[in-house]
Amino acid sequence: MLSGEVDLPTFGDVVAAHDRLRGHVARTPVLASPRFDERVGRRVLFKCESLQHAGAFKFRGASNALLQLEAAARKAAAGAGAGIAGAARVVATHSSGNHGAALARAAAGIGWRCIVIVPHDANPVKTAAIRAAGAELVTCEPGLAPREAALAEVVARTGAEVVHPFDDSRVIAGQGTAAIELLSDHPDLEVLTAPVGGGGLLAGSALAVRGMLPSCRVVGAEPEVADDAARSFHGGVRVGMPGSPPTIADGLRGSIGVRPYAIFRRHVDDVVTVSERAIVEAMRIALEDLRLLVEPSSAVPIAALIAGRIGAPGQRIGVIVSGGNVDLSVCPFLSAAPASTRYRPPYRG
Amino acid sequence: MLSGEVDLPTFGDVVAAHDRLRGHVARTPVLASPRFDERVGRRVLFKCESLQHAGAFKFRGASNALLQLEAAARKAAAGAGAGIAGAARVVATHSSGNHGAALARAAAGIGWRCIVIVPHDANPVKTAAIRAAGAELVTCEPGLAPREAALAEVVARTGAEVVHPFDDSRVIAGQGTAAIELLSDHPDLEVLTAPVGGGGLLAGSALAVRGMLPSCRVVGAEPEVADDAARSFHGGVRVGMPGSPPTIADGLRGSIGVRPYAIFRRHVDDVVTVSERAIVEAMRIALEDLRLLVEPSSAVPIAALIAGRIGAPGQRIGVIVSGGNVDLSVCPFLSAAPASTRYRPPYRG
Repeated sequence: MLSGEVDLPTFGDVVAAHDRLRGHVARTPVLASPRFDERVGRRVLFKCESLQHAGAFKFRGASNALLQLEAAARKAAAGAGAGIAGAARVVATHSSGNHGAALARAAAGIGWRCIVIVPHDANPVKTAAIRAAGAELVTCEPGLAPREAALAEVVARTGAEVVHPFDDSRVIAGQGTAAIELLSDHPDLEVLTAPVGGGGLLAGSALAVRGMLPSCRVVGAEPEVADDAARSFHGGVRVGMPGSPPTIADGLRGSIGVRPYAIFRRHVDDVVTVSERAIVEAMRIALEDLRLLVEPSSAVPIAALIAGRIGAPGQRIGVIVSGGNVDLSVCPFLSAAPASTRYRPPYRG
Repeated sequence: MLSGEVDLPTFGDVVAAHDRLRGHVARTPVLASPRFDERVGRRVLFKCESLQHAGAFKFRGASNALLQLEAAARKAAAGAGAGIAGAARVVATHSSGNHGAALARAAAGIGWRCIVIVPHDANPVKTAAIRAAGAELVTCEPGLAPREAALAEVVARTGAEVVHPFDDSRVIAGQGTAAIELLSDHPDLEVLTAPVGGGGLLAGSALAVRGMLPSCRVVGAEPEVADDAARSFHGGVRVGMPGSPPTIADGLRGSIGVRPYAIFRRHVDDVVTVSERAIVEAMRIALEDLRLLVEPSSAVPIAALIAGRIGAPGQRIGVIVSGGNVDLSVCPFLSAAPASTRYRPPYRG
């Protein structure tokens, strides 16, 4: 679909997104934990996008794309003397996760219709979140081809604008705004790290770092069993993941996009990988040390920090905590605790 | 010990504490959750003291007391030409929970020695936190009398200054500073609520509300099985809890103090109670809706909100989320989930 030269966002696009999103996105808090610092021998600052609207950084990119679409639609309507051009305010995407919910919530905020293509085997909790955020759901068979076919059908039928979850310059620029906020508050970071799925978050973050603090290293973190970005980055050729890799980090199962890969090649310093077991342990540690529920994808760079894979002892490290959408009824680190150590509420006896 | 007229803090003392604590305490974030708002039919703002230094609001009161002690010690040392007066920088308290850790951390920050009396049956996780925060521990038999005897012995031996967890005007004024921050950010609240144990947090918060937004109602929340403050408030006579009530909200097992009770009589509008089961359910809901780990004590006002006991539909409610110190290995709401619904990581097979 994409070949050779594609449009790539610049640091200027991230700054413009930062300006555009003011008042639309939450300025999420930056937290630190002396206990975690001691654990990893570094000074770590957590940018908590798990506390962003719709529970993930995805709201930034989705909002940045939608606000630009809305501005264009308004301009077209003014040019056409309103009427027809103003009528087709529909946006669509395929997503079984946070991007769908984020796009739906951003669309609801400016009165656009939102259609999300969801495979019929998607997590019902995430599907419910997408519906609750105001989207119309269209179900399809699992797999990329059926999803894209269903999306094409929706576009043909409704004239919807498509906002891709990560291979979209507007989305990448929007995702970079979390790093702008973090670097504004902490202009002395030595390393910035974020999880890598499609690569939109780390690509946008890398643009922000190169524009604001070029000395800061940018390191991605990925599950070992979904290491397409690491292999692409280190091998010098973009490779994809065949099928759906068996990682608990459901947000990181996709393959790195064309645009993110191109940005990684220029601006990212390293991509490291961690085991599934380390991801689950990092979720538990985040809850204990930070009192934050982070989703498995967000636990990936935290796991890499715990393993000593990011930065050097004593360095100041920024982590983008990408999201907090966890289905508690399937919360993974709970099954590890032996039942006998569980709390017995006093009212039982 | 205390009788008749006691010194009571004023709104001015809370404002002075707010000024004194700048740069010492974290300005904790205020979070909202559309999902929670829908659940309770109100607009709820959560002031996250679970993200305060040492994981609880207690750091505010402890720091306010210590900074005043430090100023007095410095003045005395200057008057005496330094020397002896400057030597006795020791503070002591009895606490098996957040106050001990908070006082220890505040003392470490200004170079004071801190001694905490802990009953030998205290939760080892909390004891470890107190030690990790830099305190020397002195163990004693459980019960108020042995604790006070041990504290008196420490004071006689070391000349330590005592900072009571809640029946201390400096502590109450410090606890009120969280409400000052919340009301500065959200000057349109209609109700403010907080948990009640010894009553220091709600008393300080009530002083802040009466000074800044007199129209705002102030409502305390308490476990049904530790309802001494509710009975005292509604009965018009301060009564205590005999022994240690069997509530999971370990921070709320103590009885309301003399000073907090006097402030409640003047400035608090209601004290409501909730069941143990509702407290555990509220912890789970806070984790799901807010992605925040809150301790059982903090879940008490959240449970009261869920039960419709605080404010009226559509009202804007502020909640002080008092702390996030939970021993995950005994996390109560986990044992409720049937094992069969737990997540099976894909790497297992």
